[in-house]
Amino acid sequence: MDTELRKLKLTIAYDGSSYHGWQIQPNGITIQETLQQALKVMTGESLTVYGSGRTDAGVHAWGQVAHVATATRIPPAGLWRGLNALLPDDVRVRAVETVPIDFHARKSARAKTYLYCLDNDTVPNPLTRQYAWHIRKPLDVAAISRAAGLLRGSHDFLSFKAADGETATSARTITSIRVWKHGRYLLVMIKANGFLKNMVRIIVGTLVEIGAGKREWRDMATVLAARDRRLAGVTAPARGLVLRTVFY
Amino acid sequence: MDTELRKLKLTIAYDGSSYHGWQIQPNGITIQETLQQALKVMTGESLTVYGSGRTDAGVHAWGQVAHVATATRIPPAGLWRGLNALLPDDVRVRAVETVPIDFHARKSARAKTYLYCLDNDTVPNPLTRQYAWHIRKPLDVAAISRAAGLLRGSHDFLSFKAADGETATSARTITSIRVWKHGRYLLVMIKANGFLKNMVRIIVGTLVEIGAGKREWRDMATVLAARDRRLAGVTAPARGLVLRTVFY
Repeated sequence: MDTELRKLKLTIAYDGSSYHGWQIQPNGITIQETLQQALKVMTGESLTVYGSGRTDAGVHAWGQVAHVATATRIPPAGLWRGLNALLPDDVRVRAVETVPIDFHARKSARAKTYLYCLDNDTVPNPLTRQYAWHIRKPLDVAAISRAAGLLRGSHDFLSFKAADGETATSARTITSIRVWKHGRYLLVMIKANGFLKNMVRIIVGTLVEIGAGKREWRDMATVLAARDRRLAGVTAPARGLVLRTVFY
Repeated sequence: MDTELRKLKLTIAYDGSSYHGWQIQPNGITIQETLQQALKVMTGESLTVYGSGRTDAGVHAWGQVAHVATATRIPPAGLWRGLNALLPDDVRVRAVETVPIDFHARKSARAKTYLYCLDNDTVPNPLTRQYAWHIRKPLDVAAISRAAGLLRGSHDFLSFKAADGETATSARTITSIRVWKHGRYLLVMIKANGFLKNMVRIIVGTLVEIGAGKREWRDMATVLAARDRRLAGVTAPARGLVLRTVFY
């Protein structure tokens, strides 16, 4: 009798502060490897956990999704409980579900939402220093909102792609981009059918330059049209970024 | 010519996760000592920083207040900037002000506000694991609110005092106690003219037992009247507690 493989979908939250990002690499501990080690303890199998995409070093997640094909007979609820007992407390498995064998965390994803948090007050709040980018200068929220609105829709986002990002095409569709204040924090939420490497962080870096009065909000249209990374702003730090949801 | 001493009031925010509390002690780094070291670098003086009260190991602050008497000629704005440059990023000085020479951070305080944060969902949010107490079981907010209401006013809070807390009297006045939900979080804010050692943490520990259905909300009246620590609930963990404001 053959061993029948099951496909499992994991929904994972993590504080990325202490990790070298999602993807396994030689020079530091990653989320992927941390999950694989815990799965090995539980199942005895050397499994590969495939994520919906990489998150950079220091980036957080609330709803990262990954899949794994396994022969284990442990039911999803048992895996969920066991993984959370084995994992460090900065990585939590929110859900384990059995999915059809053709489910693929990356290829099946239809859209993703990222949230970026700016701490916009004179002195940074030490309780959120690892989860927000502190900008002392008061930002012009109206200008940021207007500039953000220019990015909505289908565009070539090459200007907002890290130089070393590998993808065949840089055309993406932003279906929603929201900017709002929550007390001292300024939040930027972006939903798109896909994201280029560092896309959210470069967009936010550009928005902050606009909000600080270094650029006009209309400049965003020029940057977008130029298809040239050098015209966009700085790459905002990883710590303010959270992968919120992956849609299937 | 004598050196004229000035009294300075410092408003301090900190992430208490890595500290052995406010007060200097032999076995670990404290907030008080961290501030005194930074002040020594700036002023050349070995100053004592007097806080409005001790916070326990792991407790956070947004508006801790301290005073210091100094002969330095550095203006408050210069001290503010310099201290924030020297301090680790989990301790921030929000304000430095010159105050009358008779100002005393502890003795002049009229009231304080503490906030306690509970993370009440199936899986803890890893981004708030150091700032909230995770309670998996859904808590009955209405029962907690009713029980909390019984504590409002002037009472002998001996039942909510750590056994080793030293104070002449345990009579205190809670002027305000609020309980509310914010998404997955349950927040308890208490304002009083003073707090006994671990008072908020023991109150919250008791409220959680009520919210989890282990006790009736009316039991809070019995616990309060008994003046006996053994009748109250567990001491809630330090990490959910923030000293919000000290009123003068």
